[in-house]
Amino acid sequence: MREAGRHAIDLVIDRMTTPGSRPPCHAPSPGTLRVALDEPLPEHGTRDLPGLLDHVTERALAEATRLDHSRCFAFVPSTGNFPAVLADALASAYLSVPGAWLVGAGPTQIELTTLRWLKTFLGLPDGHGGLFVSGGSTANLTCLAVARDHRLDGRPQPHARLYCSSQAHPSVAQAAHLLGLTREQLTVLPPDDDLRLDADALARRIGGDRRAGLRPFAVVATLGTTGTGTVDPLDRVADVCQEEGLWLHVDGAHGAAVAGTPRGHHLRNALGRADSLTVDPHKWLFQPYEIGCVLLRRPELLPETFGVARHALDQGYLRPAHPAAPAGEEVNLSDYGPQQSRGLRALKLWLSLKTFGAGAFRRAIEQGADLAEYAAGLVEAHPELELVTPPSLAILTFRYRPRDAPATWDADAAQAHISQRVCADGGAVLLTTTVRGATVLRMCTINPTSTRADVAYVLDLVTRYGRDI
Amino acid sequence: MREAGRHAIDLVIDRMTTPGSRPPCHAPSPGTLRVALDEPLPEHGTRDLPGLLDHVTERALAEATRLDHSRCFAFVPSTGNFPAVLADALASAYLSVPGAWLVGAGPTQIELTTLRWLKTFLGLPDGHGGLFVSGGSTANLTCLAVARDHRLDGRPQPHARLYCSSQAHPSVAQAAHLLGLTREQLTVLPPDDDLRLDADALARRIGGDRRAGLRPFAVVATLGTTGTGTVDPLDRVADVCQEEGLWLHVDGAHGAAVAGTPRGHHLRNALGRADSLTVDPHKWLFQPYEIGCVLLRRPELLPETFGVARHALDQGYLRPAHPAAPAGEEVNLSDYGPQQSRGLRALKLWLSLKTFGAGAFRRAIEQGADLAEYAAGLVEAHPELELVTPPSLAILTFRYRPRDAPATWDADAAQAHISQRVCADGGAVLLTTTVRGATVLRMCTINPTSTRADVAYVLDLVTRYGRDI
Ligand SMILES: Cc1ncc(COP(=O)(O)O)c(C=O)c1O
Ligand SMILES: Cc1ncc(COP(=O)(O)O)c(C=O)c1O
Repeated sequence: MREAGRHAIDLVIDRMTTPGSRPPCHAPSPGTLRVALDEPLPEHGTRDLPGLLDHVTERALAEATRLDHSRCFAFVPSTGNFPAVLADALASAYLSVPGAWLVGAGPTQIELTTLRWLKTFLGLPDGHGGLFVSGGSTANLTCLAVARDHRLDGRPQPHARLYCSSQAHPSVAQAAHLLGLTREQLTVLPPDDDLRLDADALARRIGGDRRAGLRPFAVVATLGTTGTGTVDPLDRVADVCQEEGLWLHVDGAHGAAVAGTPRGHHLRNALGRADSLTVDPHKWLFQPYEIGCVLLRRPELLPETFGVARHALDQGYLRPAHPAAPAGEEVNLSDYGPQQSRGLRALKLWLSLKTFGAGAFRRAIEQGADLAEYAAGLVEAHPELELVTPPSLAILTFRYRPRDAPATWDADAAQAHISQRVCADGGAVLLTTTVRGATVLRMCTINPTSTRADVAYVLDLVTRYGRDI
Repeated sequence: MREAGRHAIDLVIDRMTTPGSRPPCHAPSPGTLRVALDEPLPEHGTRDLPGLLDHVTERALAEATRLDHSRCFAFVPSTGNFPAVLADALASAYLSVPGAWLVGAGPTQIELTTLRWLKTFLGLPDGHGGLFVSGGSTANLTCLAVARDHRLDGRPQPHARLYCSSQAHPSVAQAAHLLGLTREQLTVLPPDDDLRLDADALARRIGGDRRAGLRPFAVVATLGTTGTGTVDPLDRVADVCQEEGLWLHVDGAHGAAVAGTPRGHHLRNALGRADSLTVDPHKWLFQPYEIGCVLLRRPELLPETFGVARHALDQGYLRPAHPAAPAGEEVNLSDYGPQQSRGLRALKLWLSLKTFGAGAFRRAIEQGADLAEYAAGLVEAHPELELVTPPSLAILTFRYRPRDAPATWDADAAQAHISQRVCADGGAVLLTTTVRGATVLRMCTINPTSTRADVAYVLDLVTRYGRDI
């Protein structure tokens, strides 16, 4: 065990301290991987665990795009961190379950403490509460389930309406669908010219819907859209929700972390007004997958959706005849969310905050935001690059356009081509997204190991491959 | 890093190789833990990561019930295993995402391979497919979402009806609720005398409901109820579903693993007929949390619920302009379930199957089932113990009853009292559940380190504390 364990740690350290010799964008063909890895179920074991570790890291884990590469500017690149990896191992070995207090008292307290830290970091009022979930998609589902139950008396209402802008994350549509809302019941509003949820249009639409006999119940605003990092006008949307008595859910999966820095302090007031908030520590809080977080202004609503829903079938094995602590004192986090058995995701955030300190997190977030501004400066200064959306929460989008573009210039195809070349030949990851119907290049600069040189290098590749066209 | 990493491994090994010096049932008071662990957000870090590891394992992770203790017979006691812990650490460090092929090709292939192994192990047809999820609750939700969409044209139908027995797991009620079904829409049937879903009553109820203008769409059968390990009559229920054109979901979270052993081969045919199946490797496949699994007869239905639902809001950042592999070849597992970012849960099952071999898993499962039979034998032979439900899938329930019970004997209170004493003073974990309205003692013997001596010791405690009453 010790030999294999040490070998695993060496592999972990090796991975986390070497940028890797091959291009970060790496997706071997399905056929190749099938041949390499699709062996039959092994009936017999082996004593060579270290050998297995080598095999699987080389042949499988390394056969993937390196999201933590300093020149991976795609998606919301997760970086992870070393204490967090050790935390995941310990939580796994200790079978730590922050579920029923009787089972996982210490783990539950770690989760509660970490939640409190996160609230402090984001400047949320003390009364807020919630739990950690698998990621942003589950967080959005969890929050919207409570919104539905609390605002619609817990029963399907065909006239119920939920609102968001077309820039909201697809997981919002998925959550609405899972919760039994039809396509019409999710009202997708076109954004304003700055790609923000248009609060006036929202208010008008809600009023019109009410007059038409519909039943508006909730609004999803995004703090940092995935495509462009855009921040919806949270204060104004909160006003609308307050006037109309609607639930406000803020999807801050990517962006909420900025509220921990001076740059984001102005968002704190509105965040505190939201009924529910999604934050993804596996995004801009530098955690490995999977850790999302749900924070509610009235956390006591969570068990009304998740605890009570199970009662119809309770045979008492979840509530043994003798309680673990005096009534009302014990916390059973499994009543607060969709999972019953749960791992201690909080431990990685706890251990990395203890190791690095919240100050280091703040500085790393600021640095990522600064880097996007630096990138935007380069784009604006370059005659062949045009900024499509300004840097916001470390995300910017732009396009390549030759100085004297011919009439036949297919701008969308060109960006796709450039992205493809950058990934295939250029040793970087830069992907496209769609902004106002156009294909654009998108850059997310939250990796604390990314440098100005990395940014300049990638922009250089863009113009080089652009000229090749 | 190396020092801290090795220290973490030492802590892991220490935990996994020592049974622990204190009683396995351990739930300190909320106040005590708050005092010990609820410190303010640390602004500054520390270089003493090994010290932090010691602190958090001693003060938090160890302050919990030891589910892997050989005398913990409560819940469905997860045991975990060492290769699985290393797998969790590697997946975390490598940021392995079996989501989009472009991001996590190798991890996706590991998940596909492991799924195939699980199908082979359970004797499922090759066409089945699915994915790993956080646990049984999410697996049930995932399967029932597909059932709802596929059988009800993806839209809420107030007349839709879902059926299960009252012995089904509470997560089934929760899933129905999340999916927008009301309490009436989940028809909870009383079980037959053996606590099984009554297939005749089910057929009659479905027929009656149809005549009343309702729309039956799915049935949940349980392969191993949590309370008593009871196996619903899968073949007969499958017949009913086939005749009536209903979706059959089998919740085998705990019990499906038995189909990997000769003892459970007779279940394979019915399992293959189910439209969807929940299996929890973090139960009887000895994995640490969190790993549940969803297996569908027609896996292509998963993206119809989970991929398509997101389309309403897709800005293209999930589908960059250049594909990772030729169309139709790449697998994007994030389209198959509720999560977008996903960790590589499959790796732990993969690595433990490679290390120990499927044969060891089979033997360990058999041993757990044998141990329950041994326990039942002792109960039956003992004049003061009465078996309430026979051992099934390593679960049995029983009661203590003194030889000449006085008229005032409160049987329910006695079992609760005994359980409480066993946990508090006896160095074992034995909890109560409710069977046919009565409080009973429940024993789940799946831990491969539990011995006959452990079982005898605990039954001895039961009679000792029973006599004290
Ligand atoms: C704004 C926003 N919400 C939700 C999500 C979904 O988060 P996850 O991938 O953790 O499910 C994302 C992911 O990128 C996001 O950017
Ligand atoms: C039959 C059954 N289904 C579902 C579940 C829920 O599984 P999980 O705790 O992994 O969510 C359990 C848990 O004990 C179970 O026994």
